[in-house]
Formats: sequence, C-alpha cells, structure tokens
Amino acid sequence: MGVVDRKLWSERKQLMFRRMLEDVEVGYLDPDVYDLLLLLFNRRESFPVSSCSGRVTLVDAPMPWHRKSSTVVFKKHSPVEEPEIASLVRQPPVSRLWLVVTGPILHVSALTLREASMLLKVARRAGMKHSGVLSVSKRGIYLELKTGVRLTILLRSGNYVCEHLQEVVKVANEALAEGKNRLRRLYEELLKAST
Amino acid sequence: MGVVDRKLWSERKQLMFRRMLEDVEVGYLDPDVYDLLLLLFNRRESFPVSSCSGRVTLVDAPMPWHRKSSTVVFKKHSPVEEPEIASLVRQPPVSRLWLVVTGPILHVSALTLREASMLLKVARRAGMKHSGVLSVSKRGIYLELKTGVRLTILLRSGNYVCEHLQEVVKVANEALAEGKNRLRRLYEELLKAST
Repeated sequence: MGVVDRKLWSERKQLMFRRMLEDVEVGYLDPDVYDLLLLLFNRRESFPVSSCSGRVTLVDAPMPWHRKSSTVVFKKHSPVEEPEIASLVRQPPVSRLWLVVTGPILHVSALTLREASMLLKVARRAGMKHSGVLSVSKRGIYLELKTGVRLTILLRSGNYVCEHLQEVVKVANEALAEGKNRLRRLYEELLKAST
Repeated sequence: MGVVDRKLWSERKQLMFRRMLEDVEVGYLDPDVYDLLLLLFNRRESFPVSSCSGRVTLVDAPMPWHRKSSTVVFKKHSPVEEPEIASLVRQPPVSRLWLVVTGPILHVSALTLREASMLLKVARRAGMKHSGVLSVSKRGIYLELKTGVRLTILLRSGNYVCEHLQEVVKVANEALAEGKNRLRRLYEELLKAST
C-alpha cells in the first residue's frame, strides 16, 4: 500500500508514450492538449494517461451523468454554431436532451506522492480546483486534474423544448472558452514549475 | 511529506466532534447526513470535516462555478415546489439565473493512506465515483467524496426566460433524490465495511 512499483510504472510510461505518438500519427490527438502532454511525459515522475481539452456534447439521457440508456448525439471540441445543433433539437429524444459543456480533464500517473502533491498544487494555481488523487496502487498514483467548468442545460424534456438556442449556444461557447483558457494556464504553470 | 502528525490530527478530530455536537444542539445540522457523520467519527482513522447532503440552489452569476459576482438567491436541501421559485424567476437577474442541483459531498480527514484508500473504495461502491484525495499534509489526508450528480439549468440569460418551470422542478427533484439515495448507499456500505 502506498508504494509504486517503479519497473511496472516505467514500462507503462513507455507504452503510453508510444500510444500518444500513434495517436498523433493518425490525427486522433486533440491539438489543444498536445504541448501539455509532452510536458507531462518530460517529467521524470509523471505521465499522462488520458486527456480531454474540453467539449460540447448533446446527450439523450434521463440525467446527464447516466451511462446506461444514454446516447451522445453530438460532440465537438471547439466552438459550436446554432445550425449544427438546431436539427438535433427538433427531433424528440428518447428520454431528455441535454447540452453538456465539460472543461478540460487530465488523468496522470505519478511515481511518488511528492510528485502527485506538486501536480495538485500546480493544477490549483491554474484554476483546476477539482483535482485530486483517485487511487494509489503498485501501478502508480492516479490523479485527475479538473476544473469546475461544467454546464448541463436542459434542451428537451416532456413537453418542454428550448426555443432560445442562440442564447444557449452563446453561453456554451463562453464556458468552453473558459475551460480551454484554464488548460493554457495549466501548461504555463507546469512549464514554470518544470524549469 | 506523506506523513500525518498523529497528535495534531487527533486534536483536530476532537475539535470537529465538539463542533458537530454544537451544530446538532442549535438545529444547524442537516438530519440527512447525521448518521453518516457519526459513523465516520466512530472510525479510528477518519473524521468528517464538512458535509452537504445535496441541495437545489438558484444562482445569479455569469457561470454557475463563478464565485465573484455571484449571488445565491435560493437554497433548499429537500424537494422544491414551483411556487417557491416562480417569483424569483420573474425578476431579471444581474447576469444570468441558474438552477443548480448538487449531489451529496463530504470532506473527510484520514490519518493513513490505507484508511483513505479504503474510504475511496467504499465511496465508489456507493456510486460516489468522483471521489479523491485533495491534499496530503501533516494535518491529515484530505478526501472529497462526491457523486457525478450535478445539474446547471439555465433559467434566464439575455432575452431568454425559461417558461417551463414545472418540468424543470420535476427534473431537479429527480436529481436531488438520486443524490440522497447515494448518500444512503454510502452509509450502508460504510456500515458494512466498519463491522
């Protein structure tokens, strides 16, 4: 308990690095997050496991956090325009239609508690105040770096249909931009702490 | 780093326990969470620092996660009825009006990593999947136990005014109930793990 297996951890870091390079090759990697991932790989006691730079989704689900009986009908990692989603809102959902904006989220594996603690401090400085250690095992200290940026706007439920998509899209893009901004701050704060 | 000062921690546990008793005395403590707090205090290596059983708020703010230029105009820890909020929605907000539902959230101080890890596992079993260690210091291992239950429904923004309060209130109460249900599950899982 509390002790990471250094060999296992290093092997996994190598594997994740190769995977990232493959993702870059096929154009799968979100360019908004690439620099930050490199910076994390470059640290001796950290590596990124997964990441999202922030996005706007339309979800058909009873509640936006449900996984079962839930369908993502739209997903975009950059600003949205009204015509892109208008036709989707016109169709009656199976349960309810939500517009969800999520800020950036990163999962990082750290080798030591000292490194994990340092990353948490850097994340807080960048406005990622909902960051924490999710688990500690032989495979690493597993961190989630996250902001409080999150919107779940009800677009359709029962007889209710949102008639003001223009305003909703404006608010959603504003939230998305706020998230991306914190991601840039995280990069800058980490760069400062790494040199 | 990583080592909690046992004396400091125990003193703080005593202090927090006395504070909780005072809160009970003045009727300040939320009854939905009392049993769970007692169960946590009863564990040798844990104590609760703060808690919320879940609630519905109306917030006047540019974004629901903003703290500056933000005002809570309504707050309730039990189901909401439409007339309670209808008049508040009729008044134009300073920036935007949001209905926010938050699930239960607990902050716990643990003495050891072993205990922290055990609490995280119990929390996940109870459906509190967004739980983690926020910091580690001499004063304790500081955990947040949290669900993904969270709604931020836009009620007013610019010219947009939500005309379907009845449906929104229905959805909000459903979310609140889901949060309270996970709090009960946390109690049950912790009781199982404690005996």
